[in-house]
Amino acid sequence: MNSLTIIGRIFSPFKQAAGTPIQPSRAAGASGHIELDPAYVPALKDLDGFDRIWLIYWFDRAIEAKLTVIPFRDTVERGIFSTRAPARPNPIGLSSVRLLSIAGNILSIADVDILDGTPLIDIKPYVPEYDNFPVQRLGWIENALNKSVADSRFEKPSLPRQGVELRTNSLC
Amino acid sequence: MNSLTIIGRIFSPFKQAAGTPIQPSRAAGASGHIELDPAYVPALKDLDGFDRIWLIYWFDRAIEAKLTVIPFRDTVERGIFSTRAPARPNPIGLSSVRLLSIAGNILSIADVDILDGTPLIDIKPYVPEYDNFPVQRLGWIENALNKSVADSRFEKPSLPRQGVELRTNSLC
Repeated sequence: MNSLTIIGRIFSPFKQAAGTPIQPSRAAGASGHIELDPAYVPALKDLDGFDRIWLIYWFDRAIEAKLTVIPFRDTVERGIFSTRAPARPNPIGLSSVRLLSIAGNILSIADVDILDGTPLIDIKPYVPEYDNFPVQRLGWIENALNKSVADSRFEKPSLPRQGVELRTNSLC
Repeated sequence: MNSLTIIGRIFSPFKQAAGTPIQPSRAAGASGHIELDPAYVPALKDLDGFDRIWLIYWFDRAIEAKLTVIPFRDTVERGIFSTRAPARPNPIGLSSVRLLSIAGNILSIADVDILDGTPLIDIKPYVPEYDNFPVQRLGWIENALNKSVADSRFEKPSLPRQGVELRTNSLC
């Protein structure tokens, strides 16, 4: 009942966490695209009328869940639910990106703060009446907005490199 | 790999879809609470500093996924990804609710547009720099914001009522 279907993949310039923008607000100029499973193309109808979309995705390279973490933008432990860090009980990411265009099953997007190849779970239209609320209190984040890029603290180590490189046949 | 853990339940005044507010913006005054699995209480640390939180939840009473739907606020078919309707390929809901207080594993919340008993998947802090963006184009929604409450169109029929009522022993 609670299993997810990967509906596509998100592609971006960011191959690893280190240097990836923290949130779309710091990702101006970072563009990418979504390759949606072609089965879902009819579900994109009317989406091209929206300037921005929510992407809900799976943090597939996050370390295991932690109850508290030191977030990218802080130096002390915070409860994981008071952060947007990837090492969550359910490793689900949420980003509002700009939608530039749609052609078939390819969506061109900008303001992308997501690792290259990330599995996509859902797309929703971004609607100010639904998503923009004035708030007064921002907790620990209020004084922690100076940093703009991530580091590797929540990233699973890559598989060790194989000793043998893939070579093309030298006779070709 | 892509299975979800239910981290708690959301409780609200809304037992059925009909009459449930469409989005938190139309749910002023509707309060409720979250019962978090007590194992996750340490993950709530610092969350009480935030006025609003994102809830990511499972539409457990939604009908099966559809590629196009007639949304609550419209009369014509739209691609499901251009709507916030529950009948999604992955039935994941997203709502920004007000956080009133936290006591142990109980979070008191307001502006709740969610059915009573809904399984909770994630909590994130609501941060304007991350979540508020100006947009010009709202697609089909631009002229469709008059309706405030949902109906039953995306709700699975309840189990049929049993013919036999539960009775207390008449001798008691």
